Amino acid sequence: MEVLNIAPVRFEEGKMLVLDQTQLPGNTVYLEMQTKEDVWDAIYKLKVRGAPAIGVAAGYGLYVSVREVDAADYQDFYRQFMEVKNYLASSRPTAVNLFWALDRMEACVRRFEGRAGDPWKELQGEIKVALLAEAEQIRIEDERACRSMGEYGLTLLKPGMGILTHCNAGTIATAKYGTCLAPLYIGHEQGYDFKVFADETRPLLQGARLTAWELNQAGIDTTLICDNMASIVMKNGWIDAVVVGCDRMARNGDGANKIGTSGVAILAHEYGIPFYMFVPTSTIDRNTKTGDDIHIELRAGEEIYKLWYEKDMAPEGVKTYNPAFDVTPAKYITAVVTEKGILYPPYEESIRKIFEEE
Amino acid sequence: MEVLNIAPVRFEEGKMLVLDQTQLPGNTVYLEMQTKEDVWDAIYKLKVRGAPAIGVAAGYGLYVSVREVDAADYQDFYRQFMEVKNYLASSRPTAVNLFWALDRMEACVRRFEGRAGDPWKELQGEIKVALLAEAEQIRIEDERACRSMGEYGLTLLKPGMGILTHCNAGTIATAKYGTCLAPLYIGHEQGYDFKVFADETRPLLQGARLTAWELNQAGIDTTLICDNMASIVMKNGWIDAVVVGCDRMARNGDGANKIGTSGVAILAHEYGIPFYMFVPTSTIDRNTKTGDDIHIELRAGEEIYKLWYEKDMAPEGVKTYNPAFDVTPAKYITAVVTEKGILYPPYEESIRKIFEEE
Repeated sequence: MEVLNIAPVRFEEGKMLVLDQTQLPGNTVYLEMQTKEDVWDAIYKLKVRGAPAIGVAAGYGLYVSVREVDAADYQDFYRQFMEVKNYLASSRPTAVNLFWALDRMEACVRRFEGRAGDPWKELQGEIKVALLAEAEQIRIEDERACRSMGEYGLTLLKPGMGILTHCNAGTIATAKYGTCLAPLYIGHEQGYDFKVFADETRPLLQGARLTAWELNQAGIDTTLICDNMASIVMKNGWIDAVVVGCDRMARNGDGANKIGTSGVAILAHEYGIPFYMFVPTSTIDRNTKTGDDIHIELRAGEEIYKLWYEKDMAPEGVKTYNPAFDVTPAKYITAVVTEKGILYPPYEESIRKIFEEE
Repeated sequence: MEVLNIAPVRFEEGKMLVLDQTQLPGNTVYLEMQTKEDVWDAIYKLKVRGAPAIGVAAGYGLYVSVREVDAADYQDFYRQFMEVKNYLASSRPTAVNLFWALDRMEACVRRFEGRAGDPWKELQGEIKVALLAEAEQIRIEDERACRSMGEYGLTLLKPGMGILTHCNAGTIATAKYGTCLAPLYIGHEQGYDFKVFADETRPLLQGARLTAWELNQAGIDTTLICDNMASIVMKNGWIDAVVVGCDRMARNGDGANKIGTSGVAILAHEYGIPFYMFVPTSTIDRNTKTGDDIHIELRAGEEIYKLWYEKDMAPEGVKTYNPAFDVTPAKYITAVVTEKGILYPPYEESIRKIFEEE
């Protein structure tokens, strides 16, 4: 499946390239990230999106943003590094992988603190090499995690099943394979013959533009619907399982994901359809107690009535409310698929256990 | 409220005019209907939409389409009339008011059957006058029914309430006032200070283009959201009641309405929020046993990924499923508001009673 070779973030010959997902499905364009402003802008404007892919972009982006730094000493380097780190952290508030990746990069710098007395120019070079290696490591680990989630996830599915998904937690939302789409790719290779229904996912249309595009390219049977058609396709008996990604999971199993996910979960619950959330452990934030503690990003109302359209589709001066995410309470989640295995309720306990095993 | 004077169908100085709702909110344009093809096209392309307004358009439309007929005798007139009637009936399959209004017009012609032996030219003139009067009557009765539904509906609401609505069952979906928006207009006149949330209602955006426009014009506090945000606004505690219209109600209380309504009803049920369906008795089809017997109109997939947009928002060759309506099971409907009073479960019984009282 060629589509699995289309990475959302590439680092080649010293260049960081980001697939501009706002131009999909029409154009497949890679943009070079040369400055921290480029990286911030790419994350803020959703040129790169999807919690794991944002983590990967943050890693490489931090490296690219500091590789030209010529500091006086370790303290000076660390100060400049932290400025960039805090700046990039302000690009989007909800996906925990952003902060998690930036923290990993900071920990990487701090590993050199004890050697602050070494000849500085050489040490500065060593730190930069280590930062690039750390970014590579984040990408590689994510690819492995996705492959693993795909294999675990596939054990929950059967050939011929009807699958509903919301937003895009596919290969271009991660280093490779995707989170909740990974089992569909792996199953497809094994002849599972899924019938996938993709919610278009308003207002940014990740389902129409990205998921339908990915799955079509892979030759997986995919039907595009509007978000408000999830109920009727379930009622029609066409859906055997719902699979979605996650942007941040609290330690009680409440999961923030793309706006509308909680509604899909409630419908699945009412129709007796299993609802599976795919969550790499890097997306589980044990510092967050419940979903109520997750900060939900509010975005501009123009995304609802102006973006993509030929003309304004609402009256002038209309009030809007445009949250980018909502929280699906743990009670509606049948199982949480991680790269370390499948978790079942009570999640407080199963999440604690999986981290203790580390 | 000026907006209440913007009728979806007008008949003035011998001309039938239809508000082209596909041009809202940008342009307020009336189109003259001169032929049966004009009328069919206006209904099919949703220039006039909303079950009661379709009924009104069918009445005047049938009159306009036969007023030039110069038949040889009563049988010939009736045959030509039925050709037009069957043609107009093919414009949209789900809203029962279309068939109900066309049947009323047919009954009007048949009242002259016993006088088929009268001097024909005079009788033909009389029939045409009666048809126009019948169309006027359909419009007037609908306006009264809407006003009455508004007054009954208002008894279910309190000042300051947060109200969610889906699609547009407002003044331009009816002769005047609307069905489910009628209590909002009447309450607003009385200082009720509602906070309304309007689902944009994909793919045709009746909520964004029509409901937000209507309510904004009336000065009612209105916030536009995407359909997939209904869950979070309910979760936030902002919604005290859901009000929606209906395109056809079966005699057991299952109600077909704009696609997505059943999902909103299930969410309201889960969050413990009352869900009110506004249904003039002309929309109750006692020949339909349950919602399973209601034919759901499927529309072109281009409406999902092409209509309104600057460019295609899904990959070429994408499969789609685009039902225009879904059925909300009676069990999720807290009350049915008709022009004759408010019905409560079990609906099989309360619907039977209200027709017996006729």
